[in-house]
Amino acid sequence: MTIFKLFLLFSFLSFSFSEETPNHHAFPRPLILEYAELEEEEVSLRCRSWRFAGEANNLSPWKTVPKECAEHVKEYMNGKGYVYDLEIANKEAGEFAKSVKLKEDGLDAWVFDIDETLLSNLPYYAAHGYGFEVFDHAKFDDWVEKGVTPAIEASLKLYEDILNLGYKVILLTGRSESHRAVTVDNLINAGFRDWHQLILRSSDDKGKLAVIYKSEKRSEMEKEGFRILGNSGDQWSDLLGSSVSVRSFKLPNPMYFIA
Amino acid sequence: MTIFKLFLLFSFLSFSFSEETPNHHAFPRPLILEYAELEEEEVSLRCRSWRFAGEANNLSPWKTVPKECAEHVKEYMNGKGYVYDLEIANKEAGEFAKSVKLKEDGLDAWVFDIDETLLSNLPYYAAHGYGFEVFDHAKFDDWVEKGVTPAIEASLKLYEDILNLGYKVILLTGRSESHRAVTVDNLINAGFRDWHQLILRSSDDKGKLAVIYKSEKRSEMEKEGFRILGNSGDQWSDLLGSSVSVRSFKLPNPMYFIA
Repeated sequence: MTIFKLFLLFSFLSFSFSEETPNHHAFPRPLILEYAELEEEEVSLRCRSWRFAGEANNLSPWKTVPKECAEHVKEYMNGKGYVYDLEIANKEAGEFAKSVKLKEDGLDAWVFDIDETLLSNLPYYAAHGYGFEVFDHAKFDDWVEKGVTPAIEASLKLYEDILNLGYKVILLTGRSESHRAVTVDNLINAGFRDWHQLILRSSDDKGKLAVIYKSEKRSEMEKEGFRILGNSGDQWSDLLGSSVSVRSFKLPNPMYFIA
Repeated sequence: MTIFKLFLLFSFLSFSFSEETPNHHAFPRPLILEYAELEEEEVSLRCRSWRFAGEANNLSPWKTVPKECAEHVKEYMNGKGYVYDLEIANKEAGEFAKSVKLKEDGLDAWVFDIDETLLSNLPYYAAHGYGFEVFDHAKFDDWVEKGVTPAIEASLKLYEDILNLGYKVILLTGRSESHRAVTVDNLINAGFRDWHQLILRSSDDKGKLAVIYKSEKRSEMEKEGFRILGNSGDQWSDLLGSSVSVRSFKLPNPMYFIA
């Protein structure tokens, strides 16, 4: 693969190349090994920028991980980068949670999303290209019904801290009501306990954008008197919209996008 | 520096270490070189996570770049990572801008912040530790008054595209009214032109949080009839609050935080 081809590959990511971009005429030939290293570094940097852009909510809706970044996302998800990103997001959430003086009326709430927030579907996505394959609803439903999705350790620790501080925990997930029983079992087996409410998509919520569905549900919480202080989710559609929390915490997820 | 010391250093970043964290007892000794490499990789990963967390709006307000990440931030700001992150954010903004069918009443607006959004104060920060030194208002004012802040190339390209598409450009900056003349000259010399309005902090706005000041100004734009379709800024306080834009674009900035 030449540097030139790499330029083409990344036309989807980049619309103007700085003068710093290596020009292959500037290198003596045939330094094949050096080319390969340069290319690998370029791919890594461009894909990291793509991932960054996602975490900063700069990307338009996307259906699959860009082909050029499939390997990068796989490595990230299986490496320390993902673990450390989960840790710092949850640590910041925990520090904020501790910093708030709760009222004693039991109405201070923390909202958690479930998939890729409390539970990790990494085993499923590892078998399906880490987001490079188009999402298959039926296959994913089969996986959910197994009820074996493991906890995200850093999120489980935050969850315990939040409970112990006296927050009411409300779980708000895009999973359908039909998965309620297996979701409850899965959460308990993964170590989660004592949530105040578990909200799943009812038949009325079918077809709604996640950001609308979740905003509506948060609005209902507020009508019940809850003060939503924190909200943890791996999608911006978990966190934005209306009735948003005082602080929200975006957990990393470069594998899929939910609007 | 031992791995153990590294752990201590990063206690501010990490509250739970996964089992993947290298245990120095697991390595044969005295592989000093390998230790050094491992440490460097750890620092790099932890600091990248810190930077990611900032871009995802997960961090509490901070005053300086963490000591351990000073070198990481310097390398990032001077390397391709920063350039590529600027490029992808501006590219996504441009694609969104093009995708909107504008009304022909001249009321479709795009809001731009100035510092670290259109103009780059990197020369100033390079001389002041890339955010590792505590911000010095007087020194920064002196720098601003020189009027030599260069354009961010990818943002200048977006700016031109936005103008050519027919948007009204409104510049909304935290700079004070006292810097108006030099800011206008600086912008023009850097290649920016034809903005509809340049809003700076008046004496009435002194002491307001940026997120409040900017929300108020956007609210005034809406009262004048403008539809704020896009908003580009390097701080979340440029983008959040009320009267927010349809889509906003967070440009990277690991050097400072404005609430």
